[in-house]
Parts: sequence; C-alpha cells; structure tokens
Amino acid sequence: MAPVKKGILERLNADEVVIGDGGFVFALEKRGYVKAGPWTPEASVTHPEAVRQLHREFLRAGSNVMQTFTFYASDDKLENRGNNLHLTGQQINEAACDLAREVANEGDALVAGGVSQTPSYLSCKSENEVKAIFKKQMDVFIKKNVDFLIAEYFEHVEEAEWAVHVLKSSGKPVAVSLCIGPEGDLNGVSPGDCAVRLVKAGAQIVGVNCHFDPMTGVKTVKLMKEGVERAGLKAHYMVQPLAFHTPDCNRQGFIDLPEFPFALEPRILTRWDVQKYAREAYNAGIRYIGGCCGFEPYHIRAIAEELGVERGFLPAASEKHGMWGSCLDMHTKPWVRARSRREYWEQLHPASGRPMCPSLSKPEGWGVTRGHAELIQHKEATTKQEIAHLLEMQKRAKENA
Amino acid sequence: MAPVKKGILERLNADEVVIGDGGFVFALEKRGYVKAGPWTPEASVTHPEAVRQLHREFLRAGSNVMQTFTFYASDDKLENRGNNLHLTGQQINEAACDLAREVANEGDALVAGGVSQTPSYLSCKSENEVKAIFKKQMDVFIKKNVDFLIAEYFEHVEEAEWAVHVLKSSGKPVAVSLCIGPEGDLNGVSPGDCAVRLVKAGAQIVGVNCHFDPMTGVKTVKLMKEGVERAGLKAHYMVQPLAFHTPDCNRQGFIDLPEFPFALEPRILTRWDVQKYAREAYNAGIRYIGGCCGFEPYHIRAIAEELGVERGFLPAASEKHGMWGSCLDMHTKPWVRARSRREYWEQLHPASGRPMCPSLSKPEGWGVTRGHAELIQHKEATTKQEIAHLLEMQKRAKENA
Amino acid sequence: MAPVKKGILERLNADEVVIGDGGFVFALEKRGYVKAGPWTPEASVTHPEAVRQLHREFLRAGSNVMQTFTFYASDDKLENRGNNLHLTGQQINEAACDLAREVANEGDALVAGGVSQTPSYLSCKSENEVKAIFKKQMDVFIKKNVDFLIAEYFEHVEEAEWAVHVLKSSGKPVAVSLCIGPEGDLNGVSPGDCAVRLVKAGAQIVGVNCHFDPMTGVKTVKLMKEGVERAGLKAHYMVQPLAFHTPDCNRQGFIDLPEFPFALEPRILTRWDVQKYAREAYNAGIRYIGGCCGFEPYHIRAIAEELGVERGFLPAASEKHGMWGSCLDMHTKPWVRARSRREYWEQLHPASGRPMCPSLSKPEGWGVTRGHAELIQHKEATTKQEIAHLLEMQKRAKENA
Amino acid sequence: MAPVKKGILERLNADEVVIGDGGFVFALEKRGYVKAGPWTPEASVTHPEAVRQLHREFLRAGSNVMQTFTFYASDDKLENRGNNLHLTGQQINEAACDLAREVANEGDALVAGGVSQTPSYLSCKSENEVKAIFKKQMDVFIKKNVDFLIAEYFEHVEEAEWAVHVLKSSGKPVAVSLCIGPEGDLNGVSPGDCAVRLVKAGAQIVGVNCHFDPMTGVKTVKLMKEGVERAGLKAHYMVQPLAFHTPDCNRQGFIDLPEFPFALEPRILTRWDVQKYAREAYNAGIRYIGGCCGFEPYHIRAIAEELGVERGFLPAASEKHGMWGSCLDMHTKPWVRARSRREYWEQLHPASGRPMCPSLSKPEGWGVTRGHAELIQHKEATTKQEIAHLLEMQKRAKENA
Repeated sequence: MAPVKKGILERLNADEVVIGDGGFVFALEKRGYVKAGPWTPEASVTHPEAVRQLHREFLRAGSNVMQTFTFYASDDKLENRGNNLHLTGQQINEAACDLAREVANEGDALVAGGVSQTPSYLSCKSENEVKAIFKKQMDVFIKKNVDFLIAEYFEHVEEAEWAVHVLKSSGKPVAVSLCIGPEGDLNGVSPGDCAVRLVKAGAQIVGVNCHFDPMTGVKTVKLMKEGVERAGLKAHYMVQPLAFHTPDCNRQGFIDLPEFPFALEPRILTRWDVQKYAREAYNAGIRYIGGCCGFEPYHIRAIAEELGVERGFLPAASEKHGMWGSCLDMHTKPWVRARSRREYWEQLHPASGRPMCPSLSKPEGWGVTRGHAELIQHKEATTKQEIAHLLEMQKRAKENA
Repeated sequence: MAPVKKGILERLNADEVVIGDGGFVFALEKRGYVKAGPWTPEASVTHPEAVRQLHREFLRAGSNVMQTFTFYASDDKLENRGNNLHLTGQQINEAACDLAREVANEGDALVAGGVSQTPSYLSCKSENEVKAIFKKQMDVFIKKNVDFLIAEYFEHVEEAEWAVHVLKSSGKPVAVSLCIGPEGDLNGVSPGDCAVRLVKAGAQIVGVNCHFDPMTGVKTVKLMKEGVERAGLKAHYMVQPLAFHTPDCNRQGFIDLPEFPFALEPRILTRWDVQKYAREAYNAGIRYIGGCCGFEPYHIRAIAEELGVERGFLPAASEKHGMWGSCLDMHTKPWVRARSRREYWEQLHPASGRPMCPSLSKPEGWGVTRGHAELIQHKEATTKQEIAHLLEMQKRAKENA
Repeated sequence: MAPVKKGILERLNADEVVIGDGGFVFALEKRGYVKAGPWTPEASVTHPEAVRQLHREFLRAGSNVMQTFTFYASDDKLENRGNNLHLTGQQINEAACDLAREVANEGDALVAGGVSQTPSYLSCKSENEVKAIFKKQMDVFIKKNVDFLIAEYFEHVEEAEWAVHVLKSSGKPVAVSLCIGPEGDLNGVSPGDCAVRLVKAGAQIVGVNCHFDPMTGVKTVKLMKEGVERAGLKAHYMVQPLAFHTPDCNRQGFIDLPEFPFALEPRILTRWDVQKYAREAYNAGIRYIGGCCGFEPYHIRAIAEELGVERGFLPAASEKHGMWGSCLDMHTKPWVRARSRREYWEQLHPASGRPMCPSLSKPEGWGVTRGHAELIQHKEATTKQEIAHLLEMQKRAKENA
Repeated sequence: MAPVKKGILERLNADEVVIGDGGFVFALEKRGYVKAGPWTPEASVTHPEAVRQLHREFLRAGSNVMQTFTFYASDDKLENRGNNLHLTGQQINEAACDLAREVANEGDALVAGGVSQTPSYLSCKSENEVKAIFKKQMDVFIKKNVDFLIAEYFEHVEEAEWAVHVLKSSGKPVAVSLCIGPEGDLNGVSPGDCAVRLVKAGAQIVGVNCHFDPMTGVKTVKLMKEGVERAGLKAHYMVQPLAFHTPDCNRQGFIDLPEFPFALEPRILTRWDVQKYAREAYNAGIRYIGGCCGFEPYHIRAIAEELGVERGFLPAASEKHGMWGSCLDMHTKPWVRARSRREYWEQLHPASGRPMCPSLSKPEGWGVTRGHAELIQHKEATTKQEIAHLLEMQKRAKENA
C-alpha cells in the first residue's frame, strides 16, 4: 500500500518547493488534440492516451501537481462553443479527474481540480448564476476526491473571489491565480489589492498564471506578496507563466500580440531561460512554481533541475539530461564539446534565424486602435460590461445578417 | 480483415504525395526520453508508451510512414556511448519495429526500417565491417517484415552507397537520404553526383534529411534531381529537413550553430512556414515530404493541410485545426478574429521577443577557427579521415590522462 | 541696416516655435575637428571655416539659435585635458562668439552663449569656485554681447542652479537644460523638482538636452512642466535630445551604452523619426525645440518641415528637399516613385543590414557590474561625492604606479 | 613654389595606397545643398563654401584625390531634371573643377574630373550622341587641367567603354568604375568580362563604386582582377563602395532596398567597419581605396588609419582621433575607459536601438513584383532597352493624362 502523500499545504508550510505542470491546451494543440481559439477540452474522453501521456511526461519532469485538464470545461463554455460531440461537462470533468489521479498515483504528485473564468461572468450573469457554474465543476472534483482546488485564469478579481467562495465550501485547500500583469486586473485593481481580496475570500495560495512571460509573472506575484504582507495577512504564492518571451505585451497580455496563437515560436523559452525564471521565483519567496501555455515537459524539468539542490533530488527525466549541457562532453567536435558548461548556455543570446523579423511587435487592441486619448480611458474600457456590450452587438449583427 | 495497403513505390509511381513523419530524437528529448548528444534510442524498450504515442500523433497528423525509432541504434553506436542499460541492439531494434507496426496498423501508414551513419565508417573500418553493421539492423527489419527501408543521415555518399548495397539485398524498396546541403557531401561530392551514385547503387528514392532548413533542403534535392535527370536516370525524391530556420549554416549544417542543440527555440518553424515549404517541395517534383529534427506533429499536419487538395483529404488531426487560423473567427476580440485568414499568417513576420538577441549567428568549427586560408582547404578537411584522426588523438589524450 | 530681431523671450511669449541647432561636438568629430572623449573645443580658433560652415548649415536648415561652440570650454575643463595648443579659454570662447554672431547675422537667428557642467563641481570645489568658472565664460559672452545665455548639460541640479545664479547677473535671458531622464538628476531629484528649483533660481526657459533619445527627452520635459505648473510657477520649455534611438538606456544615459561613442551609427534617427519627435514636442507645449549629439543639419530641417505650417514658412534648405520624399516622384523606377509619400516613410521600419547585431544592448556601469544589491543603493551612488572619491582613488593609483 | 606631385599612375605603379574621397551627393544632401532623387549638382556655383569645406574635410581625412563634384552634371541630365537655375553644364563643371583644384593645392591630392552614366544612353541615343555628352564634360576638365579622369557609376559596361574611348582621347590617365556587384552588369556581363573590356578600351584603373556595400565591392573587384589576369592583361584596381551595410541587395543594388534613400541610417558603417573593409581591399591587391554614398570624412580617415603603417603616416584629422578609441583612456568612468582598445571595437556588435525593425529587408523591383518566372527572365529585363521602353510608356502616360 502506498504511503500517504503530504498535502499541498503541508508541503508549502514546510517551505518545500512544489512544482506545477505545464500548459495542456497549447501542448495538446501541437499534438493534435485541442483546437486553438475555443481551446476544446474533450480529449480526456476522446483520446485519453494522449492526455495521460502528457500527464506522465510532466510527472517524469518533476511536477508535484497533476492538474485536471478541465480548462474551459464549464458547462456555459461548452455550450458557447457548440460542443457537437454530445459530451456533457460532467463526462469531460470526470474523465479528466480519473486521468490525473491515475498518473498522480505513479509518483509523488497531488491532483488539483481546476476551474477558470466563465462566459457567464463576462455576459453579466448574476453572482448566483456564476457561482452555480463553478459549483457544478466542483461537485465532480469532490466526487472524484481531488487533493486540492485551483481557480485560475481570471482577468477580474471579482469573479475570482466568487470562485474562491464556492471552492472554499468544499473544505479542500484552495489556490487562486489571476491572468494579470503588474498593472492589475481589467478593472484596474492592483495586484496587491487583488491578492488581499483573494486571501480574505479564503484562498491559501495566491498568484498568477498565463498571459505574461516568466519575469513579468514573478514581478506581479511580488507585488501581490507585498500587498498581502502590508495588509498583515499571510499566504502562499504561486506562479505559472507563459513559456514565451513577451516584453512587448500591453496590460491585456499575449493575446493582443500579433503572433498569438499561431506564430509564437520565436518567443519560446529555452530551458536555460526557464532556469533563470525558477531561480528568480524562488528568490522572490514563491514556492509553487510551474508553467502555463508553452511550457513543455522539458521546461518543467528545467525548474526541477534549477531547484535540485533546494529539493534534494532531480526528477526522473533528468536521467536523459545532463545538467547544463554536460551530455555534450563526449561529442566528436571540439566546439560542440565546448558547449557542455553552464557559462556557455547562460551567456548565449540565441539567434532567431529570421533576419526579416523584428524583435518586438506592437500589441493590437482597443488601446492601440483607439489612439492616445482612449488609451487613458482604457482602464475602465475592457471590463466585463464592455465585453458584454460587444457580445450583444455581435449577436445583433448576426441576427441582422 | 484490413485491406492490403499500397506499397511505397506504388504510391510514388502513381504520383501520390507520401507524408513522412517528424523527428523522434528531438521530440522525445523534450518529452524526457532521449538524451541529447548521444541521442539514445532505448526508449522503445524502456518507455514504449511514449514512443507509441508519438507515432500515433504523427499518424493522426497525416504521416504515411511510421519510421522505426532506430536512429543511432546500430551496435557500434550503442557500444560507443556505453549503453549501460544492458539492452542489446537487437532488443531495441525489435521493440522499435513492433511499435511502428502497431501504430501503422491503426491507419494508412507503412513501416520503414531505418539505418544511419556509423562510427565504424568514421573510424575507417573496412567496407565489409561497415556493411556488417548495417546488415545486423536489416536482419531485424526483415524478421519484423517492415514495408521498406531507409538509409538516412549520411554525410559521406560512399557510406550511403554501402548501406544501399546492403539494404537492396533484402528485396525491399530502398530510400536513401543524405544530411548534406547544396555544397555536397563532406568530401565535396556535389548533390547531383551523390544522387547519381545512389541511384546506380539501387536506391529507388533519394533525397536529404536533417542538418539544414526546409528551403535549403528543397534546393539540395532539386540539385539531386537535376543530376539524376542529366544522367538519364530515374528516381523518386524525398526531403525531410529541420524545423528550424538556419540560413546562417555553413556546409556542416546546424550542429555548428552556437545554438545547437539547446537554444534552437527562436528558430522553430511556424506551421505557416511549413506550409510554404510543403508547397515548394511539391512544386519541385518531390513527393515524399516529411521532417526531421524539430518537426512536431503540428508541423506534419501543416504539410498535410497545404497538400490537402492534392491528396484529396485532410488528416484526422485537422478536426482540431481550422485551415489558416479559421478557428479564431469566433473570438470575442475583433482584432483576434481578424487573424482568421490566410493573408494574415502568410505575411506576418513574427517577433522573437528577444531584443538582446541577433538574427543570425556565426557558425563555429574548423573553418571558422582556422581562419581564411584554412577555410579554402576546408573542403577536404572534415572527411572521415580527419575525423578518424581526431578520434585517435582524443583516445590517446584519454589514455595519457 | 538690418531690422532689429525679436529676442528669445519675445518669441516664446508670442508662442512662436524657436528651433535650436544640432550637436557640434559629434558633427565636428565626424568632420575631423573634435576629439571624442575630451570633446575638444578649440576648432573655433584653429579651423574657423569648419565651425562657420556648420553654423551656416544649421541656419539654412531652420535654426533660430546659433549657440556658441563653447561646450567643455571652461578653464578648468581645458586644463584637465592638457590643452597643449596653448590657447586660453578666453581665446576659444571669443572666437566661438564671433563665428556664431557672423552667421547669425546672415539670417533670423539669435546668438546664445553656453556654459556646461564643470570638473570643479564634480571634484567638490566650493560654490564660489564653481561660480567663478561660470563667470569667466560669461564675461566673454557679455563682452561679445550675445543675445541670451544657456546653461546646459548638467547632471546635478545643484550645479545648474549655481550656473543660473551667475548667468542671471548678466541681465540677459537665461535658459537651462539638464542632461537627465525621467528618473531625475544623479542625486535622485525628480524632473519636476529640478525644474521648480531652476525656475526659482531665475531661469526663464527650462528643459533637457543630450543623454537620452527624443521621446525620452519630451517625456522628461513634460514631467518638468507638470512640476512647474503644480508649483504655480511659469516657464518656457526647451528640449534638445540625442539623434539616437536609446530605449535601452539606464538613468545615466547613452554614455553607458556599449556603443558610445564610436558605434552609435545603427541608432541614428531618420528624418522621419525627427518629424515625429518635433510633433510630439510641440504637442507637449514645448516651443524651443532643437537637438544635441547626433543631430545633423538635415535633422534640424526635419523639425522645421514638420512645424512648417505652425511657423508659416519652410527653411532655406527645404529648396533641396521635397516634403515626405516628394523629390522621388520623377524617379525612373516605379517602386522608387512609390516612396514619394508620407505614409510610406511614416510606416517603414528600416532594416539595419546587420543580422549579427541585436536590437538592444545592456548598459554598462556601476549598477550593472555591481549586481543587484548595489543597483538598489545606486540612486545615491553616482553623485559628485562618489565621482570625487573615484577620481581621488584614480589619482592615488597613478601616484603609486 | 610647391613641389610637383606624383601622378596617379606613378603612385599606383609604386604600389602606393591612393585614398579616394567620400560621397558628395549624400553628404551634401544631409548638409542641405543637394536634392535626393535628382541629386542636383549646382552647389559648386550656388554654395561654393559648402563644397569647398567638404573637399577640405576629405583632404584632412587623408584623401589623395579631390574628385570634381560633377556627378549627374552632364547636359542631358541637367535638362532632364528641369534645371531651373539657368546654370549651364559648363558653369557647373568649371566651378567644380576650380573648387577641387583649390583644395587639392592645400595638400597632397590630385584632381580627378568625373563623368557618369547618362540618360542619353538609357534612352537609346546613338553611340555618337552619347560620346558627345561625355566629350562636353571632358572639354571642361581639359581646360581646367585636371590630373586624371574617372568614368564612374555605369550599370552597362558598353556605355562605360564608350566613356573610356572618349576620355582616353585626352591623353590623361583614365580610371573607370561600374556600379555593379558580383552578378555583373545589367546585361549580365560578368565582372571579369567587364574589366577585360574596359582595360582593352584603354582604362588604366578599373573597379566599382556605389550600389553595394564594402565587402561586396571588394568581392566584385576581385572577380574583375581575376578576369583581367586570366586574360593576360594588366591594370590597377579601385573600389569606392557605399558606407551602408546592404547584404540584402539584389543585383540592382541599394536603390531597390525599401530604405533608399531616406531611411538608410541604421545601415551606416561605423569607423571600425571601414577599417575592416580597408584591410580587406588592401589584401585583395586593390590600391585605390575610397568611398561613395554614405562615406563621411571620418570614414575616409578610418581607411587612412587602417593603412597608416603601409602609407607611413596618418592623416591630419587623426590629430583629433585616437587610434582604436584610445582617446577614451582618460574618461572618468572605468567602463568607458575599458573601451579604449582595438578588441573592444572590433568585436562589438552594435545594437540598433530599434526593436520593431528587422535586420534585413526584401528588395523591391521587377524581379520581386513579377514573381518567380519573371525573375528568371530578369537577366535581360532591366537593360537599357527595357528602361527606354519604360520611359516611353511613362511619357505617353503623361501625354494622355
């Protein structure tokens, strides 16, 4: 019989590093199982071997958390996208739980059930309606007895608070992460204030995921931490950023970059970029460190390798990876052998092979197309009210067409 | 009972497009099952589910060939790297055949057994010794009854000829691809002359794989084709290039680029780059079109989508992919919806997000470190004799250490 | 007899645009008359035709101010650099005044006598000693009856205040510009506070010159203006930035960039970049608009052309320049003719022709070499006290050598 | 009385380095005296002080040749552009000769009278008509007794031959340079064949100027030299390239780059780039080394400094320039002092400060807009016949408008 695993809060309370997993929707899109744009979640039912394999690779790379592949798997989101496979949300969420648990059992990982922002909130449904959506997913997570819960990818702290309220009712530990940058949520609430509100709502772990690159992610969580500490509160911190370099993002994140989502390749982080990020996150006092869109298994392994000393061990996948390129030290070419050292990879500025391409892009979006004056009013402009208004206009346009 | 599949030559004789698969060692390295540098091949035995899954993804993406994961799996190569898992070459090669066949049976794909260049040749072993190495792998392929054979990744046409001689003895169709660019093999034999020699040796399909980017690959195969036609011979053509932009390569290919193998990310092809390549290859009269290092399943799907009209169907994985970004046409943001069209992605010059990085690198290597005079003599310099000499010196250095 | 020209304050009070000149030391360095590093000022005596010609080109380009070429021509600076030509500061300053006046008389330009920061201040000489240095230059300017005075290129607002105190005693209008960015002077005094102190000291015109690129310059002057207005004071504003793109500067400006001063070419502004800058400056309420290092006559002409409508006329040199490339509309090649329009040049992102070069550099300096901890203390670190300390250490090192 | 100077052939026969001057039209355009596009030549009459000063700066920088500022000053070219100043070609050419002679007398420089390609040739005028154009300019040069003659900037070797025929009749030494790259003239005549024809026509010095960057220029002259030597002939060689990095040029040179002529700044050579070029040219056996468009006085000085040992002296302007940045060795900042050495500047890859800009551009033009098939026919496409045809069509279009 397997020994009882330490829970998420036990680990964090003991100042252990908890390594998250990478981004399922992006990785499975490239493998052929998820549609970009609607980011369809049904592969857990239709192609369980693909989802299971990705879980396994993350486990092998060092992940301590198998997050259920339930992103955008709430009932209102499924409806929205015309789920023509006739699968119910419950089927998808249950299958996702089973796969996560199956692989978690193969190693030292916990299962986390995840909910994310809902179309219901953006279309101005009532608090009760939105909470009902969360509750429905949570009921599956409780039935399947996940180890803890994550509310992630929220652009409005208000909706995240509602999610936390619901998830707390389960009695399980609750983590929450917003997809915001240093400028705060889409209503202009600062990272510090967001974090305070979420801690007060009951979350034990707060942070950010997605939308921004690793250094921006760490910076934002630092602001959250400062806010929480200033308020005399306590929390654990998590960060799960993009595996893309996006210094040119505006406050809406990488979706507004012209390369999203099909030409982000030149921005992909190397394993060495990830090691820098892992160190930066650790030094900032963050202990739950993972990845979001773009993070492949080898990126997660790079976190585990950078923090190998702190954790006291390397992950299984390191058997196929020399630290800092040491596996090159038997290469027949002397100049390739010379690459088997830390300084080489740390100092390398890798070329893009694309001389016709710029280094940075101009983000698109309301702020940009509306010009300077609008940019200033923009803080209030992309809230859920505006999005609701836009959706309404689109709907009417369709009806008239 | 399954209908009998058309063989590789039947397909090519009928001018059908045959889509190859992508690069196993690079993809499995990122998934945690292969060690870069020695590019270890034992995962077929130790982690069959990972190898099987990758085969499946390529099949789903449109591949018509399941190439056995037997790269660098000859006995002399295994010894060389201190195969401490105590697996024999035979075990590895057999397991690889079984996995390829299992997945090939799930769709319209053939199994190809693959051999590649050997340390024996580079260390100046005799023709008989080198041929014995190839024969040993081939015997497994015959036993496992693969559909055809591929000799690939040869830097010297002479060794490739030897391989073809051996493989031909099986009676199965033989394809051969060199890892050379337009400047020819490492002894300076031009692509045209290489191709003529290989066709005369008995190969029915000739081309290139690895070492150079797609456009360079197509250009090299064009030179091969011109050579073969000039000689009044006939052949089919194949191309399986890198999924990296490497316009800055010297004649030795991407191994000499400072980013090889752990910082190539900014060079990764987008799916749209692959579509351009597939069209270019098709227009050049090449019908066996695949990929090598860096090619992930979505890159293979891009070949299948670009040639969807010519083939008459799209691959299974296209159910999760709108052509030219059409899956974005329901996005809530109007500027993201505006990306759901061909012109947008064709004309986009994606940014790297890395303003401290250059566009091109200076290749390393003998030519570079030796200066100008040596660069001129360089044509004769990196042959197997020189490499043998180098290995000898290294060996002595170790013995003296 | 020539009509009496309107004075600098008359012009600014009437909301006229006053166009400054470009950077003498950089332009004359490229022409062969100034030594980079010590930025030697003696060409007014040794090669008056070269200095006169540059004045003429700026006049022809639209400059309303002929600034005496007296940068770094204070007695203590001349001594410092071992002025081995045996010219006195007085000789140099007088010759510079004569040349400026001669050319100013050829058009609608005023003569401004200029002083800049002194080694005396940096080596912690007393207020009286420093002021004596300024007075000595000013006495020449009074003798030569310049139209107004400029104290420019100050990194510490305190020294600039002292300069203003001295210059005010002349009874002539006084302009003052610091070489600071949005982060303020080297003691950390904000742009707004700097400006308030300078206005209170008696300057009628305040702003910035040198060290940062145009957009940063305008941004800094905006902060100054906000500070002055917040304090209930009034002033005119000036900006004379670099003609180099330097978004990668730290607070010490372009001197810390690795390209300074001999590899700044890829950063040089096009004339179209200057037009954007001129518009931005004008829109910010700045009316004295010129340039510093890197500004060549055609850059100044671009200011005059952008603001041609506001000023009611184009400069003489525009006879040799079609607005927005219109002079290309007779070109024999149709694609070159297509460049004779505003949109073309405004939207062009010009290539560097340098694929081995990055877009941005890492500034050097104390902050950078000292690492993170020091970077934080850095705000107090590069004051005159620290520089004095450094000079002392250098002196001792030399004595010991 | 001044000592008689050595003639151009005496110098070259003695294997002396002869340093040319820089580009007048580009330099004077930036100074406000030349209109880009038509590249007007009348400043010698209207603003002699500006032309004289530029000559002086080149002389001071080390030029041994004062080339008359007579580019595009043939009568047919002046007519073409509607010379509304009512100056005759003779007036302009004479004034240019006087200025060149005046400054040449101030140092060790010769005067060269220059002719360039004519509209008459492009509009298919007869050989006699075209030769009459050259003769008219040459008559002025003979009257003014220049030291030797240069026929430069020819895209068709045939016209250059005609020019040489005419100039030879003067009895003065004749140099000739084409504005072609390694692919040859616009009729596809190779550099080697062009050079042979020009030497046979009587030119003592052959080479290239303009249109391509320095390394391409040297490469082209090497091809010329090989051609001449292969033919058993003898000649001296000259190279006067652009001071712009243009690796992305097609065979028509920099005019087809989208940045031409008003956004070439990011491509400007540093002085260190010029030193590399001068060394490369010298090593290739070229002894007449100068510059064309973009070459400013400090670029010419860099040639003189690189070849200071070979020539035995430095130019006058080097008194204001430390070799390899040595003038920085007294700077107060240690990291700036660290830049006062050769390795620093040789190895620096300067940043552009423009992260939104690419490294390379796509040339425009017939080849590009017509697509692939036309590109192949393109060799014959941009000859004088095609240009004549185009001009005819344009003329008709105007008449019909």
